[in-house]
Amino acid sequence: QTVKHIPGNIPVIGDAKRGDIGNTAKAYAKTIFSDFNFDATTVNPYLGFDSLEPFIQYPDKGIFILCRTSNAGAVDFQSLRCVEHDRPLFEIVALKAREWNVHDNIGLVVGATYPEELKLIRQNHPDMPLLIPGIGAQGGDPELTIRYGVDVRGEKAIINSSRQIIYASRDEGFAEAARKAASKLREQINQYRSTRTSL
Amino acid sequence: QTVKHIPGNIPVIGDAKRGDIGNTAKAYAKTIFSDFNFDATTVNPYLGFDSLEPFIQYPDKGIFILCRTSNAGAVDFQSLRCVEHDRPLFEIVALKAREWNVHDNIGLVVGATYPEELKLIRQNHPDMPLLIPGIGAQGGDPELTIRYGVDVRGEKAIINSSRQIIYASRDEGFAEAARKAASKLREQINQYRSTRTSL
Repeated sequence: QTVKHIPGNIPVIGDAKRGDIGNTAKAYAKTIFSDFNFDATTVNPYLGFDSLEPFIQYPDKGIFILCRTSNAGAVDFQSLRCVEHDRPLFEIVALKAREWNVHDNIGLVVGATYPEELKLIRQNHPDMPLLIPGIGAQGGDPELTIRYGVDVRGEKAIINSSRQIIYASRDEGFAEAARKAASKLREQINQYRSTRTSL
Repeated sequence: QTVKHIPGNIPVIGDAKRGDIGNTAKAYAKTIFSDFNFDATTVNPYLGFDSLEPFIQYPDKGIFILCRTSNAGAVDFQSLRCVEHDRPLFEIVALKAREWNVHDNIGLVVGATYPEELKLIRQNHPDMPLLIPGIGAQGGDPELTIRYGVDVRGEKAIINSSRQIIYASRDEGFAEAARKAASKLREQINQYRSTRTSL
C-alpha cells in the first residue's frame, strides 16, 4: 500500500535483508520485485551466491548486498579477518559482489557509523553504488559519510535516514515535520558533496 | 493460519532466517513469537549479537542460528577460514552462539548436505540442539546425518524435510502421501539413532 502511494519516478528500496536457499529466495525475489513492485532490495550474503542469484536475475532491479552494517554487532562476524585475501569478511563480501555483478545491478550496504570502513570500501570499489544507512537516529556523521561515500563525481551514494525523518514529530504536523527533516538532510548532503574535492 | 491448525503439543519452528538491526529485529521477534505464535525460529548471524538479542530475550522460545547451511553457496562465506581462532567462519558462529546461550534457548542450523562439517559441530558442541535441513529434496544422506547429528543420547538433532513431504504427491491423495513420507522418514531416523553406538 505504501509503495502504491509513492509516485513512479521515485525509486523505492525494500529493506528486506532476505537471505535464504534458492527455492525460497526465488519466491522472495518475486514477492519483493513483482508483487510489491520495489525497484531494489537489500539482501544478506551469509548463504552465498545461490541465495542471491534469484534477485540478481532481475536485471532491471537493484540488489544491495549487506557488507558492513551500521549496528554495533557488525564487528562480531563482518570484521573477522579471513586467511583468504588477508582481509576482513566484509571486504571479501564486497569483492564477491563485484564478481557477481554481471548485470550491473549490484550495490553494497555500508553503514555511516563506521567511516573508515566506508572510506576503504569506496576506495576499493570506485564504481559501486553504496546504500548508506546510519545517519540520523543511529548517529553517523553526515559530513564524513558523504565525503567518504560518494564516487569521484559526488554520486553513487544513497544516504538513508529513516527514523529521524518519519518520527520527526508525533504531533498532528508530522507530515510537515518529516518534510522539513528530509529537506534539511538533502541540503546537508548536497553541501558536503560540493566540498568533496577538498578531501 | 497454518500455525493455528497445528495441535499445541507439536513444536512449530518458523524458518524465517531474519537478521536485522535491533529496532527491526525486536519487531520481527514480536511478530514471529507473539503474533504468529511460533515456538522457535531461525535467524541469520551476519549482523551480530544485537540483531539476535531481541529473539534470545524470549527465554521460552527457541532460536536456531544459521551456522553451516545446506545450500551450495554455503562455501562462499561460511567456510572462509578466519585468523581469529584459525577456524572457518561457521565454527566461530557456533562458538559465539554458545557464548550467547545464557537462557539455554539457542541451537544451530547445520545442513545435512555437509556431513563432515556436521560431525565437527556436534563434536565441538555436544549439548547444542541442531536443526538439520537438507535431507530429502536437497539430497543429504539420512544415515550419516543422524549418526553425526545426534548427541550421546541419540537426541537434540531436529531433522527437517520439507519438500519431500509436502510435495510427496500433487494428486488428490496428497495428504496420505505426505503422511507416508513423514512416517517413512521417522522410521529411518529412529533406525539410525539406535545404531549410533556402532559409530
